[in-house]
Amino acid sequence: MKDVSAWIKTKTDPQHLKHKTNTHPNKQNEMGGKFHKKRGGAQMRIIPLGGLEEVGKNIMAIEYGQDIIIIDCGMSFAGPEMLGVDYIVPDVTYLKERRRNIRGIVFTHGHLDHIGAIQYILPQLGNPPLYATKLTAGLIKNRLREFALDKSAHIHEYDEFSKLKLGAFEIGFFRVNHSIPDGMGIFVKSPAGNIVHTGDFKFDHSPAIDKPANMQRIAEIGRQGIDVLLIDSTNATKPGFCRSELDIANNLEEIIEKTKGRLIIASFSSLIGRINQICNIAVKHNRKVFLSGRSMIENMKLAEDLGYTTYPKGFVKKIGPHVSSIPPSQTIILTTGAQGETLSALTRMAMGDHARVKIKEGDTVVISASPIPGNELAIVNVINNLWAQGAKVITSGDMDIHTSGHAHQEEIKLMYSLIKPKCYVPIHGELFMRMGHVEMIKKIADPRMHIAMLQNNGDILEVGRQGCRKSKQKIPANDILIDGLGFGDIGSRVIQDRKIMSTDGVLLILFQAYAETKRIVSEPDIISRGFVYVKESQEIAQETKKVAQKAFEQITQDNRKIGLKDLKNELARHISRFIRKRLGREPMIIPIVMYI
Amino acid sequence: MKDVSAWIKTKTDPQHLKHKTNTHPNKQNEMGGKFHKKRGGAQMRIIPLGGLEEVGKNIMAIEYGQDIIIIDCGMSFAGPEMLGVDYIVPDVTYLKERRRNIRGIVFTHGHLDHIGAIQYILPQLGNPPLYATKLTAGLIKNRLREFALDKSAHIHEYDEFSKLKLGAFEIGFFRVNHSIPDGMGIFVKSPAGNIVHTGDFKFDHSPAIDKPANMQRIAEIGRQGIDVLLIDSTNATKPGFCRSELDIANNLEEIIEKTKGRLIIASFSSLIGRINQICNIAVKHNRKVFLSGRSMIENMKLAEDLGYTTYPKGFVKKIGPHVSSIPPSQTIILTTGAQGETLSALTRMAMGDHARVKIKEGDTVVISASPIPGNELAIVNVINNLWAQGAKVITSGDMDIHTSGHAHQEEIKLMYSLIKPKCYVPIHGELFMRMGHVEMIKKIADPRMHIAMLQNNGDILEVGRQGCRKSKQKIPANDILIDGLGFGDIGSRVIQDRKIMSTDGVLLILFQAYAETKRIVSEPDIISRGFVYVKESQEIAQETKKVAQKAFEQITQDNRKIGLKDLKNELARHISRFIRKRLGREPMIIPIVMYI
Repeated sequence: MKDVSAWIKTKTDPQHLKHKTNTHPNKQNEMGGKFHKKRGGAQMRIIPLGGLEEVGKNIMAIEYGQDIIIIDCGMSFAGPEMLGVDYIVPDVTYLKERRRNIRGIVFTHGHLDHIGAIQYILPQLGNPPLYATKLTAGLIKNRLREFALDKSAHIHEYDEFSKLKLGAFEIGFFRVNHSIPDGMGIFVKSPAGNIVHTGDFKFDHSPAIDKPANMQRIAEIGRQGIDVLLIDSTNATKPGFCRSELDIANNLEEIIEKTKGRLIIASFSSLIGRINQICNIAVKHNRKVFLSGRSMIENMKLAEDLGYTTYPKGFVKKIGPHVSSIPPSQTIILTTGAQGETLSALTRMAMGDHARVKIKEGDTVVISASPIPGNELAIVNVINNLWAQGAKVITSGDMDIHTSGHAHQEEIKLMYSLIKPKCYVPIHGELFMRMGHVEMIKKIADPRMHIAMLQNNGDILEVGRQGCRKSKQKIPANDILIDGLGFGDIGSRVIQDRKIMSTDGVLLILFQAYAETKRIVSEPDIISRGFVYVKESQEIAQETKKVAQKAFEQITQDNRKIGLKDLKNELARHISRFIRKRLGREPMIIPIVMYI
Repeated sequence: MKDVSAWIKTKTDPQHLKHKTNTHPNKQNEMGGKFHKKRGGAQMRIIPLGGLEEVGKNIMAIEYGQDIIIIDCGMSFAGPEMLGVDYIVPDVTYLKERRRNIRGIVFTHGHLDHIGAIQYILPQLGNPPLYATKLTAGLIKNRLREFALDKSAHIHEYDEFSKLKLGAFEIGFFRVNHSIPDGMGIFVKSPAGNIVHTGDFKFDHSPAIDKPANMQRIAEIGRQGIDVLLIDSTNATKPGFCRSELDIANNLEEIIEKTKGRLIIASFSSLIGRINQICNIAVKHNRKVFLSGRSMIENMKLAEDLGYTTYPKGFVKKIGPHVSSIPPSQTIILTTGAQGETLSALTRMAMGDHARVKIKEGDTVVISASPIPGNELAIVNVINNLWAQGAKVITSGDMDIHTSGHAHQEEIKLMYSLIKPKCYVPIHGELFMRMGHVEMIKKIADPRMHIAMLQNNGDILEVGRQGCRKSKQKIPANDILIDGLGFGDIGSRVIQDRKIMSTDGVLLILFQAYAETKRIVSEPDIISRGFVYVKESQEIAQETKKVAQKAFEQITQDNRKIGLKDLKNELARHISRFIRKRLGREPMIIPIVMYI
């Protein structure tokens, strides 16, 4: 294996990155396709292996000659149509085959959709070095520790002033804001051109804990001439600006000040800045803070240990029996479960199943989050149950107590104006977000700017002497489904079967027949699950048995030599047709034939 | 059976309804519980049998002595947690037992959550008379026709000036606005007190087709002294006013004017007023209108036949082969599927499966609707697919092209101010909406007003000489689940089984054993669906077979006389434990034992 390039750490901005003027070739913008002129340099390939067909699973490879760098390595949560799948990780077959060329994985920030697949991917890629800021590195270590991979991993910390040389790539950074501290954008220089990758970003002039995005630095990078801007699309269909975390804190303080009883505040466990703000408000208003939920406790411990909190040491405690000794008016419980997740602390409180917290009249529950699409019904269910138990519930629908971590349209335009790239590539988001992004930016961008739409994961943007274009080639980029302890052993057939059974159940018909004559020994038996109560539907059961027996006799009479597989298929077809007609349902039919 | 009271139709407001002054007893408002003083009259019971734990399935009984009237008779769509259930209808056991007392069902408007269960309920209640406005009556007839019940039903039309006498009840109406024409609120006078039921309502000074809500009439009803106001809560957590349909029409006209290619507009098939507006805009801008989707075609035919449309007769056509002969710039296709429903016309277009409409570059799809909670992911999926096929998609997130049919907070306050009831009962909506409703109205209402929170379907509000209170009694009000052609044959056990199979599949283990010795004939067989590919997981299959065989031998050795049921339970327990440990999954385990 080739030696991995040295880690360079400096407090000054990279001086070796040449200053270019940002001259646009005279070309209309267009949606992928044709080359756009550019002088000199060999070809570079930008390959998003995830993050284009989802919000999540972000991973991008940049390849030049014999060198590959990877940006982020995230997972995504499975949608409800992925029945029983816990989460999804990216397909890195292409990188695995070229693992000798991988110079490192650079992380933009510590959210699971950017680091969460690392335990699956790292061993496949031959354990390349990892580069991350202090907090992100801490979160990656925690993740790897669960899988006993933390000791063997090579994790290097960078900060916003660092410079890296990874193979042919020179890498710099710029501070952005996001819903977790330490969010970074990445500036990549290669002989084939300059790239900016925004990571997940927004601009906040009064963020919760970290500093505002470094506009000066972003402008300076823009002045160096950027060939390709890869830019976050998550909120590209939303007008205006994100509200500042300062406003959110002020509103939360108003609630905390006015509330007389116990306060339970649910939020994201990675929203470390906001949680820190709430703790400081609690100090001011004489309330103790207790943390509930494993990820909340772990993340805040890490944040405290690494110096990312500003409240007095020891002020925040893990929830325990002592919580009931504090008067409700002096208590704040900070909890996970703002998305209505089944086993989360807030859901358990709502169901009356939480060991330490029984919801009672006088409690106020504040949900300082907004629903991630797909979670709406689960959250509503939790809220209904909290009300039913006597709590008052305040959500972001009632007051501005949450703000997103992703740039809205005006912030995206601001990023565009600071960078002014030659080629603009919306990343991070579903197709409708990225197409909305294109519609929006087209209205204000330099008409000569090239807009490249990479529609699917595995699409390739080639950046070379002629400019940039979408390649006709495609890299395999399937969803790898993780269910339970398995890894990639669940295929679409299995999901399809689950879907059938989830709506109409399963119906087993057991035939006993004589092996030689193929005559049925006795009436077939029926077992069903999730279909109808066969007990309560004796009539249907009887009819089904008759149809099944008749089908068996007819099929075997027509073809005495029919094989077991064909016989079963034919039986399923007959019985299925009867059930569909009789009940309008289509259960999974499993005929079982036992010869004696 | 007692003679049903005569139908009275008049064009003047009811004069026999005595004028009362609206005197509030000196009492603080409170959340259910204590009686609130009132002079004279026997007891009346208000029983919502649906609509309190959901948005949907609205049905309410009002009982006084030997007389019962029913307001609405709706269904609700099943949430994703109700696996495979098509829809839910109310439990009317209580009414069935008292069907001789039922004087009629009065409908507020023609949405499915107010009329959609009629085909299931009507036969159970002995076919009582139905009262509805012209359009609502037409929609009810269409619904009943599908079940061949339209001929036998007794449907009487009323209008906003009608008066009814149904047993002890005198009934009047008031015009409101909603997202379907002909929405009515109901004024019920009984010897025990006066009730106002708002139905689903909003106030629109420039509605799509019907007239603005009749404020004068509502004020006049309020002046008569209202004991109980039953009021829609669906949007009670949303601030401000609903946007007027006029604004929506203006924005849609702007889109239609500016768009050069073909336009496809998706909306609710019951939004007859808006569809009428779009058709009129189409006339103005020289575009032909084609309807796609069965319910859209049916509803617009009915609306035309009954005179609820204002565009030229014959202007709107059902989609057919001729659609392709019209230039795209002169075409508007109006379609169902704005909620991403699986088999809807818009979904089929997005998937490339629609017989008449192939999405192509230059098409613009306008979704003039907003997502009903739970449908977000399905809609996003449709939108992504439309973009992927080359269409531009405009949603209510991009422009104000949809408005709700349910009063926002300021409209609810307006209704309160016009009625000023003694007792205020939020209905129509999930608990969080109705609790939010209470929080909101408490801030502005007369502090002496009594607020009664009926938490669950089947809760009873008693209105009598002492005032009104929540009864300790409860009427059974279960969800009746409709799946396929069955009726109420799906129970929670069946749903539970579907849930298990939907996430982890099913695993069958077939044992053949000698009846006498209980010795196994040969190694057990395994069949699985939705679990893992047993083919690809030979190792797991082998291990499972061994565990199963060992378990069988051990169980039968320990207890030679074990019954078949206990044996199966024990086997399932053993195998389940092994699978959980080995794979972290919990499939449905079905052991099948065949003795020979």
